[in-house]
Amino acid sequence: MKIVGLMKKVSIGSAVLGDGTFKIIAGPCSIEGRDHFLETGIQLKELGVLILRGGIYKLRTNPQSFQGLGDEVFNWLLEAKNKLGLPLVSEVTDPRQIEKLSECIDCFQVGTRNMYNYELLKELGKQKKPVILKRAFSALVKEWIYASEYITREGNDNLIFCERGIRTFETITRNTLDLGAVAYLKAHTPYPVIVDPSHASGERSLVLPLTKAAKAVGADGALIEMHLNPLKALSDSDQSLDLMGIRNLIHELKNVADSKPATLS
Amino acid sequence: MKIVGLMKKVSIGSAVLGDGTFKIIAGPCSIEGRDHFLETGIQLKELGVLILRGGIYKLRTNPQSFQGLGDEVFNWLLEAKNKLGLPLVSEVTDPRQIEKLSECIDCFQVGTRNMYNYELLKELGKQKKPVILKRAFSALVKEWIYASEYITREGNDNLIFCERGIRTFETITRNTLDLGAVAYLKAHTPYPVIVDPSHASGERSLVLPLTKAAKAVGADGALIEMHLNPLKALSDSDQSLDLMGIRNLIHELKNVADSKPATLS
Amino acid sequence: MKIVGLMKKVSIGSAVLGDGTFKIIAGPCSIEGRDHFLETGIQLKELGVLILRGGIYKLRTNPQSFQGLGDEVFNWLLEAKNKLGLPLVSEVTDPRQIEKLSECIDCFQVGTRNMYNYELLKELGKQKKPVILKRAFSALVKEWIYASEYITREGNDNLIFCERGIRTFETITRNTLDLGAVAYLKAHTPYPVIVDPSHASGERSLVLPLTKAAKAVGADGALIEMHLNPLKALSDSDQSLDLMGIRNLIHELKNVADSKPATLS
Amino acid sequence: MKIVGLMKKVSIGSAVLGDGTFKIIAGPCSIEGRDHFLETGIQLKELGVLILRGGIYKLRTNPQSFQGLGDEVFNWLLEAKNKLGLPLVSEVTDPRQIEKLSECIDCFQVGTRNMYNYELLKELGKQKKPVILKRAFSALVKEWIYASEYITREGNDNLIFCERGIRTFETITRNTLDLGAVAYLKAHTPYPVIVDPSHASGERSLVLPLTKAAKAVGADGALIEMHLNPLKALSDSDQSLDLMGIRNLIHELKNVADSKPATLS
Repeated sequence: MKIVGLMKKVSIGSAVLGDGTFKIIAGPCSIEGRDHFLETGIQLKELGVLILRGGIYKLRTNPQSFQGLGDEVFNWLLEAKNKLGLPLVSEVTDPRQIEKLSECIDCFQVGTRNMYNYELLKELGKQKKPVILKRAFSALVKEWIYASEYITREGNDNLIFCERGIRTFETITRNTLDLGAVAYLKAHTPYPVIVDPSHASGERSLVLPLTKAAKAVGADGALIEMHLNPLKALSDSDQSLDLMGIRNLIHELKNVADSKPATLS
Repeated sequence: MKIVGLMKKVSIGSAVLGDGTFKIIAGPCSIEGRDHFLETGIQLKELGVLILRGGIYKLRTNPQSFQGLGDEVFNWLLEAKNKLGLPLVSEVTDPRQIEKLSECIDCFQVGTRNMYNYELLKELGKQKKPVILKRAFSALVKEWIYASEYITREGNDNLIFCERGIRTFETITRNTLDLGAVAYLKAHTPYPVIVDPSHASGERSLVLPLTKAAKAVGADGALIEMHLNPLKALSDSDQSLDLMGIRNLIHELKNVADSKPATLS
Repeated sequence: MKIVGLMKKVSIGSAVLGDGTFKIIAGPCSIEGRDHFLETGIQLKELGVLILRGGIYKLRTNPQSFQGLGDEVFNWLLEAKNKLGLPLVSEVTDPRQIEKLSECIDCFQVGTRNMYNYELLKELGKQKKPVILKRAFSALVKEWIYASEYITREGNDNLIFCERGIRTFETITRNTLDLGAVAYLKAHTPYPVIVDPSHASGERSLVLPLTKAAKAVGADGALIEMHLNPLKALSDSDQSLDLMGIRNLIHELKNVADSKPATLS
Repeated sequence: MKIVGLMKKVSIGSAVLGDGTFKIIAGPCSIEGRDHFLETGIQLKELGVLILRGGIYKLRTNPQSFQGLGDEVFNWLLEAKNKLGLPLVSEVTDPRQIEKLSECIDCFQVGTRNMYNYELLKELGKQKKPVILKRAFSALVKEWIYASEYITREGNDNLIFCERGIRTFETITRNTLDLGAVAYLKAHTPYPVIVDPSHASGERSLVLPLTKAAKAVGADGALIEMHLNPLKALSDSDQSLDLMGIRNLIHELKNVADSKPATLS
């Protein structure tokens, strides 16, 4: 499946994944408002973060209606993005959202609940923006690779795998981060692989050690949940880092050398 | 349960676990003979490995009889150990083996199948040699800690936890190495924690990246399956490293800084 | 959540689920052609089967194109259904398929891969045909109930749960049929619950005992994979029953009394 | 491995498992005293229960000492058993308990924590009393069969398998009862198979439907946790049936026909 040594680089805006450096993609679980988003972006940029993440659809007051996300919201998102000059990653859950989202985001994220949503994957394969494909709660690695082919066979090979923890019997962490799968993907596919230690652990104090482990195992980056004030976050407050947590994370990662993918036997 | 910052150091012979350095414990799955064991030890010592491992009971030709392990075998094990000057770790599976094993090994290993064997654990608590307690195939972290208390409550706190991968739905690796559990134990208990990437992955090419990840997450060492000639190993040949693999592993680990346990929130 | 004793009956065409009898829904994994489908339906009807199942989208030669399913196919499906007078259940995987499918099927099936596809569920909630909601590979029962509310809150309470086996470490069966979940749902929700022993086991010889167990635990029916000639089936040949298997199943089920849901403590 | 149709019957005292009838083995999790045990036995006998169960070691005030179980206790156990005329099943956790336990019990139970305790299994293979071998929390069926061979190869083929639920991600039941494994064992081994719905579900209201399902799938019996007054039970009070629960269970089971093992394909 892979020509060893030939790694695919994927660009999210001006940032490159798969170039041998470890990238942090950070931001709030859901964008909570124009000013909050702008302030978050300014602070993260100062720390050296090159890619922002943020959930858009949670803005909707009426969960039954895609149309509820008014043009106004897209306008101030574009405004903020222009001021910051940073690319934005956001989740997509329905093929009918793709066109509108394309106007203001730089990378689509397919969440764990939609990895098997092949109709959505095929539509994402027909456009050119990069796609972060999270692993389903209990997807076999083989199924995950198979799902990725629904995207790439349509012509879009701007693909990034994201390991976000699998569902096991253990309850002390929310999920179990499967770094063996990361090492396996790095050795057997050409695409960048990132991890989501925030959702994997569900616990702020484990985000730093798991991110260091992910870099050491050879991952290309991490998706980090952050909030300017985690105690006030509308969701996932237990696992969000604050700015000091992000700064510390970036500092500590400097001392971790990653693993080169093993050659195939 | 733990006074933060107070870490327990555990000595295996002259080697110390929990002192902030990452230790490699290496050796064959089962000791295959006097000369082979001696040669393995000499080579590992040259590479800087400070602790040997090796299964003794697999030497027995008659699996039904503990008495089958003659005094002769113990004699040449002692001879080899004296020549090498390295401590030896070996597995125990029955309370009635403890006395005899004590004469020639420096640390007991309780395998994944015996983590819930409380009668064995209690007997190991009544003696003073260190005990490596592997996690059962599907033990909750809370049960693992509880099992360790069968040992420590009897008076022996020379305890080392060993994460060896848990059983999940995934089949691409033999088990799923749970590094979140390692980070959790480092933050919540004072004892050293090591990993077994060989049994966790069941695949030689994943041993290096997973060991680097284990160091980065904050583990105190790794138990590595090795064989002078893996293709000729009597068991587990797919996951054994050869000498060059061990040398490369030790070299690569130098560039990985570990994670300090998070303070409790 | 449920007023004990008040069970919801759901009609698929003229057949009723949740009326205290155990219903067999049978048919091929994928409809393989007009004559084959008609012959299957005639034989099943003679055995007393009241509801047919059959996958439509697998007919498509071009997997990338929904439009590939020509009007001709829908025409002969309608023709066959009219001749047989039996209602048809078929899977839906994209909100954009609903309108066209509505013309010829009587009940939508949401497969295990789409249980978390909330956009699809919401659209199914806006129409009135019954929906069989299969459990995702590793969905918690609480998540499954939550998913069902995406349908019912939109106004469609013609809901049927289908337990199809969960993903565990065990490999001797393809999945592990969770009959405790069936008993739990029967006690805590008013909706009919059926099982899919064919996909749960992946093994023909286990379909009969698991279906009997499902009836005994209180399920309202079973979705059985069948094929006139299993060895020639295009997919899932290992788990399909032939006509004699279906006849034997129906005969054996007569001697199994089901369990009434327990009253809540 | 099995000559189809040749089923092994195993006697526990005068009661026979594997003769085509479904047997209830009932009793408290732990024997709480002479009078309580006698009263429980009298009541169960009146209901038609033929085999008693009860944990002995939980009687010990000093958990570290097997000797703590005085001769007095064994004496009144024998006295009670003689008055009742019913055989007793109890758990064994250490090879050194076998001799003493043999004097007053009729069947050894190996709990889920000791299925991999091969030294214990071998010793149980060297004596003649029947052994109920529970499946470990996450044992593969193949490992379970392999563990049973540690007993039978030593000469004791009075073996009974007990499925007690496996560990999965689901939390609404304590474990997931794997009835597919029961059907598989009935088809592929000659030994009786029973289930433990009390530990599998951890929930009183699920014991009845799961026991009916177990009979329907072809099991030979069930191990039921009961207590004269569950609210006062020293352990596992949530899952214990009272006498009325046992009476109802026995009554309802009469209307469930079991499954004959499938012939092998």
